[in-house]
Amino acid sequence: MAQSTDPSDPPPALHPTLEPSTRRMIAGDHSRLVASLPLPTPPSSSSSSSSKDRSRPSQHHFSTESKQFTGAALKKLATPSPDSVILPLGAGRPSPELFPWDCTSIKPSPSAEKNRFVLKDAVDYDLSSVLDYGYAEGSPQLLRFMREHVKIFHSPPYADWTTCLSSGSTSALEIALRIFCNRGDAVLTEHHTYPGFKEVAGLMGLAMHGVAMDTEGIRPDSLRTMLQNWDKKLHRTERPSVLYTIPSGQNPTGVTQTHKRKQEIYEVAEQFDLIIIEDDPYYFIQLETSTAATAPPSRDNVANGHIPTVSSSAETYFTKNLIPSYLSLDKSGRVVRLDSASKILAPGLRIGWVTANESVIDKFASYHEVCTAFPSGPSQLMVFNQLCENWGAHGFVNWLASLSMRYQKRRDILLQACQDHLPQDICTWDIPTRGMFVWIRVDLSSHPDLVSGTELTPLESSNIDGRIMTRAFENGVQVTNGSLFEAGTPFPSQNDQRAVFFRLTFAAATDKELVSGVQLFAKAVQDEFM
Amino acid sequence: MAQSTDPSDPPPALHPTLEPSTRRMIAGDHSRLVASLPLPTPPSSSSSSSSKDRSRPSQHHFSTESKQFTGAALKKLATPSPDSVILPLGAGRPSPELFPWDCTSIKPSPSAEKNRFVLKDAVDYDLSSVLDYGYAEGSPQLLRFMREHVKIFHSPPYADWTTCLSSGSTSALEIALRIFCNRGDAVLTEHHTYPGFKEVAGLMGLAMHGVAMDTEGIRPDSLRTMLQNWDKKLHRTERPSVLYTIPSGQNPTGVTQTHKRKQEIYEVAEQFDLIIIEDDPYYFIQLETSTAATAPPSRDNVANGHIPTVSSSAETYFTKNLIPSYLSLDKSGRVVRLDSASKILAPGLRIGWVTANESVIDKFASYHEVCTAFPSGPSQLMVFNQLCENWGAHGFVNWLASLSMRYQKRRDILLQACQDHLPQDICTWDIPTRGMFVWIRVDLSSHPDLVSGTELTPLESSNIDGRIMTRAFENGVQVTNGSLFEAGTPFPSQNDQRAVFFRLTFAAATDKELVSGVQLFAKAVQDEFM
Repeated sequence: MAQSTDPSDPPPALHPTLEPSTRRMIAGDHSRLVASLPLPTPPSSSSSSSSKDRSRPSQHHFSTESKQFTGAALKKLATPSPDSVILPLGAGRPSPELFPWDCTSIKPSPSAEKNRFVLKDAVDYDLSSVLDYGYAEGSPQLLRFMREHVKIFHSPPYADWTTCLSSGSTSALEIALRIFCNRGDAVLTEHHTYPGFKEVAGLMGLAMHGVAMDTEGIRPDSLRTMLQNWDKKLHRTERPSVLYTIPSGQNPTGVTQTHKRKQEIYEVAEQFDLIIIEDDPYYFIQLETSTAATAPPSRDNVANGHIPTVSSSAETYFTKNLIPSYLSLDKSGRVVRLDSASKILAPGLRIGWVTANESVIDKFASYHEVCTAFPSGPSQLMVFNQLCENWGAHGFVNWLASLSMRYQKRRDILLQACQDHLPQDICTWDIPTRGMFVWIRVDLSSHPDLVSGTELTPLESSNIDGRIMTRAFENGVQVTNGSLFEAGTPFPSQNDQRAVFFRLTFAAATDKELVSGVQLFAKAVQDEFM
Repeated sequence: MAQSTDPSDPPPALHPTLEPSTRRMIAGDHSRLVASLPLPTPPSSSSSSSSKDRSRPSQHHFSTESKQFTGAALKKLATPSPDSVILPLGAGRPSPELFPWDCTSIKPSPSAEKNRFVLKDAVDYDLSSVLDYGYAEGSPQLLRFMREHVKIFHSPPYADWTTCLSSGSTSALEIALRIFCNRGDAVLTEHHTYPGFKEVAGLMGLAMHGVAMDTEGIRPDSLRTMLQNWDKKLHRTERPSVLYTIPSGQNPTGVTQTHKRKQEIYEVAEQFDLIIIEDDPYYFIQLETSTAATAPPSRDNVANGHIPTVSSSAETYFTKNLIPSYLSLDKSGRVVRLDSASKILAPGLRIGWVTANESVIDKFASYHEVCTAFPSGPSQLMVFNQLCENWGAHGFVNWLASLSMRYQKRRDILLQACQDHLPQDICTWDIPTRGMFVWIRVDLSSHPDLVSGTELTPLESSNIDGRIMTRAFENGVQVTNGSLFEAGTPFPSQNDQRAVFFRLTFAAATDKELVSGVQLFAKAVQDEFM
């Protein structure tokens, strides 16, 4: 199928290659493009004087790295509009009702009592200390908690591991790649992967190689074969030494790697001396919680930011059910584990934590010193207060268990809606056991445009999934099309060209919106096949 | 003078090349190394099991960029100790009593009233919105204020300028260099410059070329000569196209560029098509405020975080006295202006703002999307609340004027102490009119080790200034030695090898500490000349 100029093609705003100037224009025009939650439209430049000349072109000044770079595709898709009534099954943005802060007064009040947190062996941790310059590794108070947390849940099997804070996992991922990769290097990842990884790898001039996946995630046989047969001449670069993987509730496929699968992959990493970047923001969002405790918490409590505690048996079940991380298998110290507060506390904090061997964490701290310096003091204090003062290690686990129950309930609603409304001769999916994504495979065998037996080119697939996404959007639901997640050249070729994919999320929508959203998406799929 | 192993040599901890592992060890050992304010010692890794093996070496995995990189020299110098009684004339860290927040309760209290800020044409700006994902450019509410602020103070003379927030100026500087520079490029800066710039330029493999300075800052004749005579073969790279400059209260020299000087430099930039990175965190710290309003505000009020307002005549004087920025001269859109909240609000916020032409700001936003994503939501809300809700544009200026008065008073105390205690046949200095630094030149003509008429090698200078700094530290005061600030090859050679330099700051110490600190430093200088 040739590229058409049919008006039903996705509008340019939906293309990942959208120019920033266009994006700005669209945002200013109150386009219908939306995120899962409405945000206000950014103000335009305050230069109102039309009598002034424009600047001289800057393009010739841009570096090799920055010249072609226009930012993150997924974020462009999520350009919000305050006017939107679009159902948010697209962006994996948690609902604010699941942030564990109901209310915070952040104001300069001379009369209010000074809010001090005192830790044994530490100076006071109060507002004046967090407003001051801090440590590149993060505040000692919060670090102490995080290192204990990492020890409890991952107990890395080598001596010199350590943890530092990051200004969010996105920042940590960029730094990890700058630490380990040179321009032109190849990096390995799942065949479908997080677009933020694609963007930063693209920025840094890295060649992505997607490894085949199955229902347990990235395939060790494919990984080994790829590395064994690496042809330096053919690939124009050395054999890759970095594997980026999302082991739990993978973004976008929702797949979770089993313990055995991680062991097999780790073995390949040992054989070929790979660094494993374990990006694991969904690790604690377990969608197979104890049935004894799945009674949904009352809506009122949740809306107040107080998700009820779970029973101790449910908490034990939750803890026992955690799959060992790569970090916990890491006898050689080759894993760089990225944890994030974004999905389990709140993304606006820009707080994450990184665990690896000391020489790697030293590099992280050094990079911090010349980039963000250290994570926001007020954000660190909020996390410290909630985790250390309010919850404690035990309360944090209870929070994670109850949060997981909430997500499990939402997942079940979404899956039931898929069952009820999607055409099952065309659409298939697996049940995700972690995270916030359901990955829908749409079989194109019966697509009217396709001559039986022919293969689709990637461009044609991309046209079809873009068209379905646009139609869904016009119907009033935002979903994310699979093409956005494809990582470079997949290996081995997946032989699945007669299908397209969609990522649906149950993170952001209400129960009712989840059902309506699937109905609107189902209609878009059916219309494509008419 | 040969390099000696005399025990009076600076301990390794004071060397900018200190290894992170050493730094960690020192921090753990409660070394006497201090910052201007005590912070708690970071916890060591929580791996306590000595039965585990160490990780396998990671060094062979490090990229060209990261391999030799160990972070920021100045931050290492500032490694703090809770046990310290060292007077803080070293690090330019503002006193917490000058942060405009006295008290903030950041705690999850279900009973407290929801704190909402409503802006016309904007959705509510409350905690749940700042805890959510935000814009790469910064929140629209705060941006609106910042763009107005930039318009009022700089009124850039071209049409398509705009402003975005940054996660602090350190981050903005790194991104600016990544936008404009390729590995191996040359960049221009003042002969003595901010070590953070040296570090990030070093990380990125840029060759720094220091331009000669006089009492008005970087010299246009030297800059022009350097560019005119640029020898690609000799310098092994193209003529530089980026100038990094700190125009107000320069770090470390305290020098402020006049309006005329900036015009001359801008003319050279036009001639040679330079990008000017204007790093201007001290722009609003004016140390020549109206004499009619210099009565120091009462200590009590200040300690409560409420610096008294200045009179309207003092405010007018303050505003009129501002020297036009490079941005305000920028008819071609070649200036990238970095503003920071760190010196005028609080460094722990990690908030800054960047102004440049739209194509450059688009690049910044794109970089944000793959690094910090956006500045901390709680930090943005705190700044928004103070600037927009509490102060307004007018109140902000009043704050800046009264803050300047406070710093002027401190500067005067430090200068008087220098006058009273430093040996004036050896030490000279100029009076800084902006910022927080006094730059002391120590003439070595009468130094006992020097044979009359000989020139010092940079290594010998560095030994002497390191020795004086160590002695001062042993006496109980932290100052920063000039060698730390030297930028690559200076041009033309400054012919000032018979002197060493020290940066003293009046940012952090109390009035009394300023006097004692200078006395202790004076003793260290005198002892070196015995």
